[in-house]
Amino acid sequence: MQLVKAHKTFGGMTSFWTHDSTETRTPMRFSTFQPAGGKIKRCIVWLSGLTCTEENFMAKAGAQSLLANTQTMVIAPDTSPRGLNLPAEHDSYDFGSGAGFYVDATVGNYARHYRMFSYVINEICPIARDKFGATELMIMGHSMGGHGALVMGLRHPELFSRIVAFAPIVNPCSVPWGVKAFCGYLGEADRRDSSEIEAKWQSYDACKLLQSGHRHPAPILIYQGTSDEFLGPQLQPDEFSRVARDVGQEHEIKWCEGYDHSYYFVQSFLHAAML
Amino acid sequence: MQLVKAHKTFGGMTSFWTHDSTETRTPMRFSTFQPAGGKIKRCIVWLSGLTCTEENFMAKAGAQSLLANTQTMVIAPDTSPRGLNLPAEHDSYDFGSGAGFYVDATVGNYARHYRMFSYVINEICPIARDKFGATELMIMGHSMGGHGALVMGLRHPELFSRIVAFAPIVNPCSVPWGVKAFCGYLGEADRRDSSEIEAKWQSYDACKLLQSGHRHPAPILIYQGTSDEFLGPQLQPDEFSRVARDVGQEHEIKWCEGYDHSYYFVQSFLHAAML
Repeated sequence: MQLVKAHKTFGGMTSFWTHDSTETRTPMRFSTFQPAGGKIKRCIVWLSGLTCTEENFMAKAGAQSLLANTQTMVIAPDTSPRGLNLPAEHDSYDFGSGAGFYVDATVGNYARHYRMFSYVINEICPIARDKFGATELMIMGHSMGGHGALVMGLRHPELFSRIVAFAPIVNPCSVPWGVKAFCGYLGEADRRDSSEIEAKWQSYDACKLLQSGHRHPAPILIYQGTSDEFLGPQLQPDEFSRVARDVGQEHEIKWCEGYDHSYYFVQSFLHAAML
Repeated sequence: MQLVKAHKTFGGMTSFWTHDSTETRTPMRFSTFQPAGGKIKRCIVWLSGLTCTEENFMAKAGAQSLLANTQTMVIAPDTSPRGLNLPAEHDSYDFGSGAGFYVDATVGNYARHYRMFSYVINEICPIARDKFGATELMIMGHSMGGHGALVMGLRHPELFSRIVAFAPIVNPCSVPWGVKAFCGYLGEADRRDSSEIEAKWQSYDACKLLQSGHRHPAPILIYQGTSDEFLGPQLQPDEFSRVARDVGQEHEIKWCEGYDHSYYFVQSFLHAAML
C-alpha cells in the first residue's frame, strides 16, 4: 500500500493510495480522508458511480468539511480495475473500465480481474479496520455505487452498521444499466442453462436480495432527487420501497425536490446522511 | 446570455451560462451560484487558475454549502476564450487556452480575442450587478486567478469592496509563468522599443501597481500554503508583503501550514476568506 499523493484538507488529510489487489490481480487505487486528531472510530466506505475514479468523491462531495472535527474517516475505492485491455472494456461508459458494478464477474477474461464485490469486502474493508483503525463501517454510494452499497450491506449486515444510498440502482436485473452489466459480467440469464446464472444476477440485486430474505438491522436510507434524469428508466426507488414494505425491511426514501443526479445533489445531502 | 445547465445545490442553484462576448469576440462561458431565497446582496467574482474552466470552483471549492443561507452569490468566468486556433494556443498548459492571465493582449492575433481583463471588468461585473442584482462585488481568485484578483482590485478599487487571493502570482514580471504569458500576450519587454511594452507588463503586476501608487482601501488578504509546490519559483508572497509594507498598503499573508496548491487548500480556507 503506497501513498501516491496527499493533500492537507480542513486540518486532516485527503490521500490517494495504490496497492496490489489479490482479488483483481491488478494494482488498485483508493482514496482516504482522515480528519485531524488521529483518532478514528467510524469509516464511511464510499462506492462511486459510473465513470468515476477514487477521486470524484474526495474532490466534489464536500465530505472533508463535514468530517473535519469528527472521528469519522472515508475510504473510496476506484470503480473498476484499470490497465487491462479486455474485450469491450473501454468501449462504453457503462461497462468495463469505470463500471465494475461491484460484482464478481464469472464470464470470460473478466472473471479473472473484475471482482469488485470481493475486492471491497475482502480488501477495502480490512484496510479501513486494520490499517486505519476504524471499528465501525458504514457503506454508502451513489448511483451504481448506491447499488453496490445496498447489495453489500444486505449481504454483509455484520460488516456495516448503516446503509445509505444516493440515487441508487435498486433493481439492476430489471433496468438497462444493470442488464447490460450483468450480461457482460455474469452471462445472459435467458440462456437454457440459466438457473445458475439467474441466481448470480439475483445475488447482486437489492430488491431480489430482500425477496430472498436478506435484511439489514438498521433502517436503509435512500436519497433521490426528483429531477434526476435517470429516475424512471434506471432508478426505481419506489420498487425498492414496495419490496421493502412487503418483506418488512425498515427503510426511508428521502425525496429531494428539484435535485438531479450530480455531485451537486450528493453534497447537498451528505451531512444529513451522515448524522 | 443562455443557461446551459443548472444543478440545485443546498437549496440554491449552481448554473452554467454562455453568452457572446464583445470583448473576446467569441462565445464565453461562466458559472454562477445563487443561494436560495432570491435576495442577492454581495457577489464574489472568482478568477480561476491555469487549466481551469468555469467549472472547477463550482465543483471543488465547497462554496455552495457556505453560501446556502446568505445573500452572497458567486460568478466565475472561464479562464480564456475557447474555440479559436491561434498560433501556439493549445501547445502548453500555461499559455493560450485555459491561461488567459487576465490581461488584454496586444500581440498578433491574441490582441483581437484574449481580452480577459476587460472581459471581467466590462462584462462579468456588469452581469453580476445588472442581471443578478449584486450591489457589492468582492474579487477573489486562485494562483493565476489570484494574480487577476490583485491586479483588478488594485486598478479598480471602486468596483470591489475586498480582494482575497489564494496562492497568487504577485509579481508576474519576475516569475516564469508570468514572463512566458506576458511575452506571448504583451510582447517581449527587453526589445529596444520596449518602454511601452514594459509599461504594459507593469500594469498587470500587483507589486509594480503598488509601487506606482495603486492602492485598495481594504486590507488585501492572501492565503498561502507552506507546502505549495510552486511557492518560491512562481509564488512570492513575501515580495508582495515587502512592497506593500514599503508603500503602506494594508495587507495580511495568512500562512497555511502544510497546505499545497490544490482546491483541497482553497476549500479549507474559503469560509475564513469570506467572513
